[in-house]
Amino acid sequence: MKKVFILFTLLCTTLPASAQGVSCCQKEAQGCCRKNPVIESIMTRTSVRQYQNRTLSADTIEILLRAGMAAPTARNCQPWHFVLITGKDVLEALGGRSKDAPLAIAVCGDMTKALEGEAREYWVLDCSAATENILLAAHALGLGAVWQGVYPIQQRVEQVSQLLKLPETLVPLNVIAIGYPGEAPAPKDKWKPENVTIRKGLE
Amino acid sequence: MKKVFILFTLLCTTLPASAQGVSCCQKEAQGCCRKNPVIESIMTRTSVRQYQNRTLSADTIEILLRAGMAAPTARNCQPWHFVLITGKDVLEALGGRSKDAPLAIAVCGDMTKALEGEAREYWVLDCSAATENILLAAHALGLGAVWQGVYPIQQRVEQVSQLLKLPETLVPLNVIAIGYPGEAPAPKDKWKPENVTIRKGLE
Repeated sequence: MKKVFILFTLLCTTLPASAQGVSCCQKEAQGCCRKNPVIESIMTRTSVRQYQNRTLSADTIEILLRAGMAAPTARNCQPWHFVLITGKDVLEALGGRSKDAPLAIAVCGDMTKALEGEAREYWVLDCSAATENILLAAHALGLGAVWQGVYPIQQRVEQVSQLLKLPETLVPLNVIAIGYPGEAPAPKDKWKPENVTIRKGLE
Repeated sequence: MKKVFILFTLLCTTLPASAQGVSCCQKEAQGCCRKNPVIESIMTRTSVRQYQNRTLSADTIEILLRAGMAAPTARNCQPWHFVLITGKDVLEALGGRSKDAPLAIAVCGDMTKALEGEAREYWVLDCSAATENILLAAHALGLGAVWQGVYPIQQRVEQVSQLLKLPETLVPLNVIAIGYPGEAPAPKDKWKPENVTIRKGLE
């Protein structure tokens, strides 16, 4: 019986994510959060604001960037640019949590790739999805990270743009501070069933 | 040797995501995308626009909603509301990909929880992160989904608000169509190194 359970657990965790299906998981929602490594990772990610004094390898950074660029975008316009900040003086000048991190990534909207008219603002949604991918990838790689908001606070946008010497076509959405975690904060339980409404029919 | 490799692979895939670290992965960025189930899932998620005629269990839907609510939000204000749409008539009236899906989730900003002043627009970023979590969770559960943009296109906002009879305090950011996949589109490779700039120092 024990062997069957182990086999079942291994099957659940070793199959490619897309092949796991809900068959392993649908018995109980919270149980699944522990069995499916992707769901588990989404549920346990939390903001990490203290970091070890240890740099990240180029390969690790590339994985984070690849994860960001894997996000979906409106009409596949990929209206983004990523500024890697590794210089201690720049990190300190940025302040906030960046000053203690070995790396920060400024996720920027690239206005030369943004859509036209009313759809222009979709860059904000697209870059937010990219940011969430980076945060999840960092967590999955044993790193800690925190999303530090910039846009749409105009003063912050100007400050960060000046510091990073961004061309006018780039708008910084945020600065993500990233490093090996120097703290292990418990993930917040933000599940609130009252945040859900069911609409079954038109009437 | 084969046994050692199997043990190594199992260790990589069965440890909690946060404990895996980069030690299994940092050798080569693309190799890691295949070894780490979370990175793999982020990289292979893609928009799915055709669905099987099969409903989702309540537990599966709850996992999707829990994933959404696990996203980070500015000052932890959680400015969101999720409308589950299961009625065939509503799905058809929504049109787009929703009309062929067994389920749609409208991710809405809840203006009673949004921040004040310039920071108000942060609801868009927060709800976008929640949406990306739902898309990734769907993929991890063997489902297919697509983000159908609504906000900030005013006409779409009004149309969806009327159809879903949303109170004035809720603004629909999107409608996610979700179901068991009826197609298996190849994920897009959107990696573009030219989308990255490195800033090492202030000068």
